Amino acid sequence: MIQLYSSKLLEDVVNEFSKLPGIGKKTALRMALHLLKQDVGAVSQFSQALIRLRSEVMYCRECHNLSDVELCAICSNPRRDHSVVCVVETVRDVMSIENTMQYLGVYHVLGGIISPMDGIGPSDLTINTLEQKVATGNISEIILALSTTMEGDTTNFYIYRKLKHFPVVVSTLARGLSIGDELEYADQVTLGRSIVNRMPFESTLSKE
Amino acid sequence: MIQLYSSKLLEDVVNEFSKLPGIGKKTALRMALHLLKQDVGAVSQFSQALIRLRSEVMYCRECHNLSDVELCAICSNPRRDHSVVCVVETVRDVMSIENTMQYLGVYHVLGGIISPMDGIGPSDLTINTLEQKVATGNISEIILALSTTMEGDTTNFYIYRKLKHFPVVVSTLARGLSIGDELEYADQVTLGRSIVNRMPFESTLSKE
Repeated sequence: MIQLYSSKLLEDVVNEFSKLPGIGKKTALRMALHLLKQDVGAVSQFSQALIRLRSEVMYCRECHNLSDVELCAICSNPRRDHSVVCVVETVRDVMSIENTMQYLGVYHVLGGIISPMDGIGPSDLTINTLEQKVATGNISEIILALSTTMEGDTTNFYIYRKLKHFPVVVSTLARGLSIGDELEYADQVTLGRSIVNRMPFESTLSKE
Repeated sequence: MIQLYSSKLLEDVVNEFSKLPGIGKKTALRMALHLLKQDVGAVSQFSQALIRLRSEVMYCRECHNLSDVELCAICSNPRRDHSVVCVVETVRDVMSIENTMQYLGVYHVLGGIISPMDGIGPSDLTINTLEQKVATGNISEIILALSTTMEGDTTNFYIYRKLKHFPVVVSTLARGLSIGDELEYADQVTLGRSIVNRMPFESTLSKE
């Protein structure tokens, strides 16, 4: 076998980078050589940031979102509506919804989705703490914001059954045509559902 | 401004990753969340590899290639022909040529190319040490393996002028049609040159 990298240190970094999702050996090499051109301080800062993230980051004790402190910035914000809880799969979904700037309630991060194929059952998720939260009686609405896949539907239904004895509204994200969709290219299921669940035209007008 | 990341530690890592070439914020976030799922040991190893690469890697005192020791594996290999020196721009070019498994001489890494536009002159490169190496009289051939760009040609010519008083053969990589090229799509300059520099057909037959 030929020795591709003249330096073991370089090879180590290339191997580490290429473990990251979507990074091949060539891109990893480009990254490693880029870092070699930076000054020691910058690389040290990068190196520190990685290890600090992994060892110091916490999950919010209320919503299981990533946080630097015990209670995340959303849960500790008194201007958010703590009686409305949006249930999402991952911390990335929290960011997506926050990005819309349309939601003022709080979140509950499940940490995954029920998927027997991947060996993930309800007990691997934070469904218990969600139930406890609802049992306190302080929650008026639970918004299920999971993927519209079979696993998402299963998880939605499981949570719905767990919560239906409590006096809480369980809603889900609106489904229908995406903004900008052309009818011709919409899939059958989405189009079918959006006819059945048609909505008053007035509700689509922006409020003035 | 909305707070996109619920964790400053996460934001730091995303910012660090997105400084790497070709990495945007979304990919950087995917990488950071991926690392969060790895165990502390693996992340620590990654972090260590980065800082060790930057602080411990050396440049070979003979050829300026990346190396973990003072004299790189190629320069210290007695089975390589030390009288033939291939001049390349970067350490990446060394890897490309090594990868062909067709070359058994040694290298000399210039560390760049003469480019007045980028403010890189001959004194920024390792041309002096190349001249000293040739002056010892132990070198029989210098192979110029730079890019076939204007900057490459300029650098080739500069080195050629520096070395022409020494009893050393200065050659350059063969230029012509790439293997697999169709004539119709070859560019004019390449095609023109490959007619002028036509070669005996026998030399293209693989030796038996």
